[in-house]
Amino acid sequence: MAQGLKVAVVGATGMVGAEMLRVLEQRAFPVAELVPVASARSAGKTVTFNGAEHTVVEIAPEVFEGVDLALFSAGGGTSREWAPIAASKGALVVDNSSAFRSDPEVPLIVPEVNPEAAADRPKGIIANPNCSTIQMVVALKPLHDEARLKRVVVATYQAISGSGATAVAAFEAQEQAIARGGEVDKDKLSGQLSRNLLMHWKPDPETGYQEEELKMVSETRKIFGDPAIAVSPTAVRVPVVTAHSEAITVETHAPITAERARELLSQAEGIEVVDDLSQGIYPQPIDAAGQDPVYVGRIREDVGNPGGIQMWVVSDNLRKGAALNAVQIAETVLLK
Amino acid sequence: MAQGLKVAVVGATGMVGAEMLRVLEQRAFPVAELVPVASARSAGKTVTFNGAEHTVVEIAPEVFEGVDLALFSAGGGTSREWAPIAASKGALVVDNSSAFRSDPEVPLIVPEVNPEAAADRPKGIIANPNCSTIQMVVALKPLHDEARLKRVVVATYQAISGSGATAVAAFEAQEQAIARGGEVDKDKLSGQLSRNLLMHWKPDPETGYQEEELKMVSETRKIFGDPAIAVSPTAVRVPVVTAHSEAITVETHAPITAERARELLSQAEGIEVVDDLSQGIYPQPIDAAGQDPVYVGRIREDVGNPGGIQMWVVSDNLRKGAALNAVQIAETVLLK
Repeated sequence: MAQGLKVAVVGATGMVGAEMLRVLEQRAFPVAELVPVASARSAGKTVTFNGAEHTVVEIAPEVFEGVDLALFSAGGGTSREWAPIAASKGALVVDNSSAFRSDPEVPLIVPEVNPEAAADRPKGIIANPNCSTIQMVVALKPLHDEARLKRVVVATYQAISGSGATAVAAFEAQEQAIARGGEVDKDKLSGQLSRNLLMHWKPDPETGYQEEELKMVSETRKIFGDPAIAVSPTAVRVPVVTAHSEAITVETHAPITAERARELLSQAEGIEVVDDLSQGIYPQPIDAAGQDPVYVGRIREDVGNPGGIQMWVVSDNLRKGAALNAVQIAETVLLK
Repeated sequence: MAQGLKVAVVGATGMVGAEMLRVLEQRAFPVAELVPVASARSAGKTVTFNGAEHTVVEIAPEVFEGVDLALFSAGGGTSREWAPIAASKGALVVDNSSAFRSDPEVPLIVPEVNPEAAADRPKGIIANPNCSTIQMVVALKPLHDEARLKRVVVATYQAISGSGATAVAAFEAQEQAIARGGEVDKDKLSGQLSRNLLMHWKPDPETGYQEEELKMVSETRKIFGDPAIAVSPTAVRVPVVTAHSEAITVETHAPITAERARELLSQAEGIEVVDDLSQGIYPQPIDAAGQDPVYVGRIREDVGNPGGIQMWVVSDNLRKGAALNAVQIAETVLLK
């Protein structure tokens, strides 16, 4: 099977779709045939993969015939409608939307954290977690294994590329307007992001949280398989194009020293420790953009909670936060 | 005495100094005579106050003769050397640097929080807290009065104007370079701030914290007079020009509901509650810049800690975070 797979990428013309193609190429994923899929609006465009042009086809049941792997990144509505169809035709579906993440019959996988949960997938669908959750759980995993997570307080600093290419263009237009002293168009981003901060995710009126924040709570519990883990999140959009950052405060059931945390994180899969503050060395979004690792720095004993740890976690939201993790899930299931 | 005071502003040509002059003017502080003071480098420049030009004088013992109020904002070194001299000549010194903040003989005052502590000032000096501390303690005060603070986890989103005019110019130059696709000069800000995040405050090698973060710990305890309050801080510089933002997670000894917290915060001095997320309404730096209040929004019951509160606090770092608070201290002592 690993000799060559038929792979469909749904949402191939979007930012995450394009990153999926790059990741498949860079990791030499055994693609025998590529089927780039999109809505009617983008069908007919071409994408380049492994040096060849491929015409994007409009989504329809027949495009999934004989497909081994279908990577979905075209929004929740498309996934809800089409992922079951692709799965019914025998494809492994890895879905980057939030459509199935809380479905008890759909595993939610970060390969460094819970690869074993991918085995049981009654619907043939595996969900890729939210970008801000993925990098957090990768960084929390070694601490959880050592001392069991009790509570996590997290404040995010999220890049605009998570909202897609149109949002990035709107942000750049705002920057250009400010640079030339012109009027800033605030409509496309529900506000001004350049030189400002936004909290523009869908609100949950009952709790006062943004849905983006509640995802970090429920997804973290599902991935670790521990509904007792407490998560206190704040999600903030910052004027950064790519790579999300997170200020994370961790409380575990057993105390951990900073030295031990640094040792555990240094040895953990998928993590690169970048931590020498006295030399001005800590993870930065511009360094993480385009890279695969989850970068962890500022590892320190919590001055406000003896035995706890604070750290700063930065990763490319389009790669580990989306495309890379999706392809790694496919590798875990199909290539191992 | 309130009929007209002789007021010296040390560091009158800096960003905070300029803001002090604006605040004195806007609040109609009874200035009979203004003495703008600076280093030799800036002496001879002029500043405008109440419509008149004033020549900046070089700092020297005699400039403080007959001065009733000396507002210092020219760095810790200048304060350490000159604040005691100004005080010895009878001036009330309000110092915006960190030089005296931890001195047990110097009160550290936020008028909405601990005005009574200003009365006992054996050195004739009152310290103005760090910008990130001021807005936080104003927002915490009503919750502390109601239920006593136990622990605070705070992640900051700090504007570059806190670093002064040269830093703002360097940031704007970085923005311009990116807008025209040129090379970004990273030297002046210890890194690239445009489209990026920095943690460039002085590190404390022993704890792994930045000094900016440790200030939030010690100053919060001193202002509330409660060394048991635990503070877990992360300080981050964001590509915003003016107004600091803070994601604050609060644990009190008695539980508080979001409704009660909103009620307490709405009635508190110096605070404006801006909190209707379902309508996209929450505090934003661009709205807070140039304004006096500490804006509080996103007030919600902590999904990770029953009885706790999370909130989002935004305020102009040059005004309430520096100049306004300093002038309010002077008002508390000299005009009430």
